Amino acid sequence: MRLSELSERSGVSTATIKYYLREGLLAPGRQVNTTTAEYDESHLRRLRLVRALIQVGGVPVATAKEVLSHVGDESLGRTIRLGAALWALPQGPEPDEEDPAVAAARREVDTLLRGLGWETARELAPLSPVHRSLVVAVATLIRLGYRWDAELMAPYAELMRQVAQRDLDFMETHTSEEEKVETAVAAAVLFEPVLRALHRLAQEEESARRYGLE
Amino acid sequence: MRLSELSERSGVSTATIKYYLREGLLAPGRQVNTTTAEYDESHLRRLRLVRALIQVGGVPVATAKEVLSHVGDESLGRTIRLGAALWALPQGPEPDEEDPAVAAARREVDTLLRGLGWETARELAPLSPVHRSLVVAVATLIRLGYRWDAELMAPYAELMRQVAQRDLDFMETHTSEEEKVETAVAAAVLFEPVLRALHRLAQEEESARRYGLE
Repeated sequence: MRLSELSERSGVSTATIKYYLREGLLAPGRQVNTTTAEYDESHLRRLRLVRALIQVGGVPVATAKEVLSHVGDESLGRTIRLGAALWALPQGPEPDEEDPAVAAARREVDTLLRGLGWETARELAPLSPVHRSLVVAVATLIRLGYRWDAELMAPYAELMRQVAQRDLDFMETHTSEEEKVETAVAAAVLFEPVLRALHRLAQEEESARRYGLE
Repeated sequence: MRLSELSERSGVSTATIKYYLREGLLAPGRQVNTTTAEYDESHLRRLRLVRALIQVGGVPVATAKEVLSHVGDESLGRTIRLGAALWALPQGPEPDEEDPAVAAARREVDTLLRGLGWETARELAPLSPVHRSLVVAVATLIRLGYRWDAELMAPYAELMRQVAQRDLDFMETHTSEEEKVETAVAAAVLFEPVLRALHRLAQEEESARRYGLE
């Protein structure tokens, strides 16, 4: 398809597409003559992902570029490729290692992961920004005086593992390797709000079921 | 306990506590003489919740006051009290009713709720900001060209119902009615980041399990 059709089908203006092309967020089309290039479905897909990252996820252009470079890196295994893309997404604040609540949170998270047998997560702990954000979130609860230990977290973690299994099953319905990783990144950015809303809606429903609506 | 001890145990400065007292976010202590008031565990608990809402949840003081007025309203049934407190929390943007993606999302959400038999959620739909934020989140996915329908969401919703059951079980371990609702509000604000981090960590773990770490 031509640039104008790519713009129409994606809802992204031609000026913005040209900007993404210049910034290397989108691969160049196949040049058919000096003034015209052809684009295909992979461009449309990538354009949707770029918009998801920048407009919905609020990811800066430079970060989006880094995330997408990992998505397209065929030299990496799938776990690493996926991990590299997700780790490049903006993460929360770093834990303050001087804070005793952070040390306590780190112990609870380690006990949790050991109990669950999540060996990879334990192994990756010193490197993983995801592990760090869990420590920060648990430390906040501890600092505010809420008891939030490994035992309490374990059933939630088990449920989240079932959610993650669904995520990967859905990812695997896609054919190309690049599409698989793209889907996982889009899900990480776009699916969180759906999951949060479903969680709150389930709280309403369950609460009405237990206590009635009076 | 005296103001100074309340400050020490909560980690909130006496100046900030006095501000919260003036703003009505915290009930006055029991006056023992003209210059001294006594505070108890309920003040400490409430102070933690106020900090959670304002500092972690980024809730404006006026909103926090509204949320807390519902928490303390003993004239309401538990579902309503909980709902009123949670609904007063800041919600995302309103759906744009002119947008065809919003109409499509509303249909998918309705099909989902009907399929699940979540009758209360369907009944409350026109009122509930939680329902609205689910519609907005699904509309974003549809607008970006991702297929995201009721069938795909149903297993996620079932898992979130199990999470909500855990939430309410945990809430019920508390004794007083006020404490129960306080816990639910704190969980809604503080627990989301923990759940999000557990979800991403589970994705890492499950991905490594399926595809290895090469």
